[in-house]
Amino acid sequence: MTGTARSALAEAISTFLFVFSIIGATNSKSPLAALAIGLALTVLVYASGHISGGHLNPAVSLGVLLRGRMTVVEFGVYVVSQFVGAALAALVSTIVWPHAPQAAEIHIGPAFLAEALFTLALVWVVLNVATSKDHPGNSFYGLAIGGTVFVGAVAVGSISGGGFNPAVALGLCISGQFDWANLWLYIVAPLLGAAIAALLFRVLNSDDLKKIAA
Amino acid sequence: MTGTARSALAEAISTFLFVFSIIGATNSKSPLAALAIGLALTVLVYASGHISGGHLNPAVSLGVLLRGRMTVVEFGVYVVSQFVGAALAALVSTIVWPHAPQAAEIHIGPAFLAEALFTLALVWVVLNVATSKDHPGNSFYGLAIGGTVFVGAVAVGSISGGGFNPAVALGLCISGQFDWANLWLYIVAPLLGAAIAALLFRVLNSDDLKKIAA
Amino acid sequence: MTGTARSALAEAISTFLFVFSIIGATNSKSPLAALAIGLALTVLVYASGHISGGHLNPAVSLGVLLRGRMTVVEFGVYVVSQFVGAALAALVSTIVWPHAPQAAEIHIGPAFLAEALFTLALVWVVLNVATSKDHPGNSFYGLAIGGTVFVGAVAVGSISGGGFNPAVALGLCISGQFDWANLWLYIVAPLLGAAIAALLFRVLNSDDLKKIAA
Amino acid sequence: MTGTARSALAEAISTFLFVFSIIGATNSKSPLAALAIGLALTVLVYASGHISGGHLNPAVSLGVLLRGRMTVVEFGVYVVSQFVGAALAALVSTIVWPHAPQAAEIHIGPAFLAEALFTLALVWVVLNVATSKDHPGNSFYGLAIGGTVFVGAVAVGSISGGGFNPAVALGLCISGQFDWANLWLYIVAPLLGAAIAALLFRVLNSDDLKKIAA
Repeated sequence: MTGTARSALAEAISTFLFVFSIIGATNSKSPLAALAIGLALTVLVYASGHISGGHLNPAVSLGVLLRGRMTVVEFGVYVVSQFVGAALAALVSTIVWPHAPQAAEIHIGPAFLAEALFTLALVWVVLNVATSKDHPGNSFYGLAIGGTVFVGAVAVGSISGGGFNPAVALGLCISGQFDWANLWLYIVAPLLGAAIAALLFRVLNSDDLKKIAA
Repeated sequence: MTGTARSALAEAISTFLFVFSIIGATNSKSPLAALAIGLALTVLVYASGHISGGHLNPAVSLGVLLRGRMTVVEFGVYVVSQFVGAALAALVSTIVWPHAPQAAEIHIGPAFLAEALFTLALVWVVLNVATSKDHPGNSFYGLAIGGTVFVGAVAVGSISGGGFNPAVALGLCISGQFDWANLWLYIVAPLLGAAIAALLFRVLNSDDLKKIAA
Repeated sequence: MTGTARSALAEAISTFLFVFSIIGATNSKSPLAALAIGLALTVLVYASGHISGGHLNPAVSLGVLLRGRMTVVEFGVYVVSQFVGAALAALVSTIVWPHAPQAAEIHIGPAFLAEALFTLALVWVVLNVATSKDHPGNSFYGLAIGGTVFVGAVAVGSISGGGFNPAVALGLCISGQFDWANLWLYIVAPLLGAAIAALLFRVLNSDDLKKIAA
Repeated sequence: MTGTARSALAEAISTFLFVFSIIGATNSKSPLAALAIGLALTVLVYASGHISGGHLNPAVSLGVLLRGRMTVVEFGVYVVSQFVGAALAALVSTIVWPHAPQAAEIHIGPAFLAEALFTLALVWVVLNVATSKDHPGNSFYGLAIGGTVFVGAVAVGSISGGGFNPAVALGLCISGQFDWANLWLYIVAPLLGAAIAALLFRVLNSDDLKKIAA
C-alpha cells in the first residue's frame, strides 16, 4: 500500500485509537486522565508520523495545508479519514461504556477563546517541531505535540471540555461527552486557531517556505 | 554471552523487574500507579532494547514474529523467558506484599475488547517505532511503547485490569491481582490484538518487508 | 522575517502561551497543574528553540548573556518581548478567569532562597543542555528545561509560589496569583540565581567559552 | 577547570540540587512528589552527564567502577563529592523546612529487598543506556535513569522510603526523613544491588568490555 490511501488508513487507525483512549480516560475518572489523553496523542504521532505525518486532527491538517505541505485533495482525504476513525471509535466505545455521561456545560465566549488559543498553540508546535527544516530527525516531536494537548486539557479542560480537534469533537458528541449543540464551536474555533498558527509560522519562517517539496 | 541465550536472559531479567514494579505499584495505591507501570516498561525497553529488542511480552514477540523479524525458535525461547521472569517476580513479591489483594471482577465482553484493542495499539506502536526502517536510531521508541501501556492502564484499567501482556497476566494471577479463571482471556485477547496489529503493519508497510534481515 | 525581530516575536508568542497556560493550570485546581506548567515550557522550548533559543524568561536570557552567547542589545529586546507577552497573556486570561484568586502568602527568607536556588538549577540546566558543545542536536533539551520547572513547582511551590521567572511573575501579579508587593523578590532572586548558574557554568566549562560564535 | 576536580564539582552541585529537590518534594505532600523526584534526577543527569557522567549516587559509581569505566581513585572522589553535596543540601533545607518530619518506620527484611532490587534496576539501566557502545549519542538516557527512580519511589516507597542511593540516604537522615538507625541498610542494600547489576551487565555484554577506553 502506498501514497494517499496508505496515509488515509494510518490516519483512520490512529484517530480511532486516539478517540477510544480519550473516551476511556474520561470515563475512568482517573486523576491522570489528562496526561493519558496527551500521551495517547504522543505515542500515536510517533507510530504514524513516518506514514502520514501523524495529524489525527483536521485542524492540524488545515495548518499543514496552509503552510504548504499538502494539497487540497490530500487535505480532504485526511479529514474524512479522521472523522471516520473518530466516529467508529465512539460507536465501538459504547460496548464498553454504554451509559453516556452528562455533557459538560460550557460558556460560549470563554470556551471559544480556549479552543482557538490552544489549537493555535498545538498547530504552532506541530509546524515548528515536525515540519521545520531546522531540526530534521529530531526525537521530540511526538512529546511536544502530545504535551501541548495535555497542557490544554489541564489549563482549559473545565472551560471548554478540551477538544482542540474537530474529529475528536465529533466522536465525543457521539459518545455523549460533548453536546451536539456545541459541535459548531469545536469545529470553528480550532480551525480559526489553526489558521492563525499557520500564518504566524509563515511570517516567522519565510525562508523555510521555499523548501516545500523537501 | 551471545545470541539467543543472551536475549533470553535479558528478557527474563527485564520481565522480572517489570512485573515486580507492576505488583508494587498496584499495592501502593498511589495515584501515579498507572504512570509508574508505563514508565517501568519505558525504562526497561531502553535498557534491554539493544540486547533483545526489549519485548517483555509474548504478544509483542508474536507481533515481531508475524512481522518477520524473529524465527519460531527464537519466539519460543523469548516467551518461556518472559513467563519465567514474570512468575519469579510474583513469587519474590510475596516477601514484600504477603497479603494477596482481592482480584478485580471483570465483565468478559468489555474486558476482552479492551485487552485486544490496547494490545493491538501496543504492538502497532512497537512495530512502527522500533522495527520500521523510516527512523533508525530514534530516541523515542521506549517512551512510545511504555506510554501506550500507561494510556491503556488509565483508559481501560477499571474495565479489564490492564494486562495487555500474557506474561504479566500470569504474574498477576500468582500474586492475586488477577483471577486464575480469567487467565485465558488475558492470553487470547492480547494475542488476537497482536496478530491484527502485525497484519495492519504489513498492509501499511509492504515495502518495508523486503528488509527483514536489516 | 529574520534576525532579532524574528526572535523577539517568537519570544513574545511563546511567553504569551506559557503564561496563559500557567494561569489556566493554576485556576484548574488540577492535581496535575505543576506538571502542566513544566510541560508547557517543554513544548514551547521545542517549538521556539530553533528560532530564538526558547528562553521565555529574563533570568534565562541573563544566564545566556553572562555565558557569552548574546549581546546586551539582544538581551534587552528579549526581556521586553518576554514581559510584553506575559502581560498580554494575563490580560487576556481575565476573559476566561475573571475572578482573581487570593495571592498566596509567602515568607520572604525561604521564598527568596527557593526562587534563587531553583532558578539557579534552571539556568544551569539550560546552559548545559542547550548551549554546551558536548551534545549538539540532542532531543532532550526541552524535556530537561521544562522538567526543572516542574520539579521546582512541586518542591517549593508552596514556599514561594514557584515563579523562577520575572516575566511570569509580572503576569501572575496582573492576574492576581502573585502579590505586587513581592514582585521585587520574583525579579531579584531569579536574576541572582541565574548569575550564579552562569558563573558555575563558566568555571566548569572554561574550554567551551572559546566557541562562543559556534 | 578540567579532569577529576571538574567532575567532582559537577557531582557535588548536582547531588546538592537533587537532594534539595527530594526534601522539598517530600515536604510538599504533593501527589506528584514521586514524579518530581524522578524527574529531578532526569534533568540533572542531562545537565551533568557530559561533565561527570551524571552519577549523583555512590551505588551508580560503584556499578561504573565494577563495569570498568572509572578508577578506584576517581570512585573515591566521586563518592566524597556526592556525600558532601547531599549533606549540604540537607543542612540548607532546614532554612526552608525547619520542622523535621517523622521518619517513616520500615521493616528490615522487605526494605532491604526493595532497596537492593530497585538499585539493581537503576544501575542496570544506567550501565545499559549510558555506557553501552550500542546506542552512542542517544537522547533517552536521562529519562530512563530518572524514570527508574520514579518507578521505585511509587512501587516500594511505602516499603523502604525509596532511597536507592547512599548519599541521598545520608541527606535524608540529616533532614529527618530517614532514621539514622537504618542508615546502614540504605548503604549496604544499594551497594549490593549495584554490584549484582554490574555483574549482570558484564555477563550480558562481555564483548563490550574490550572497549573500556572508548
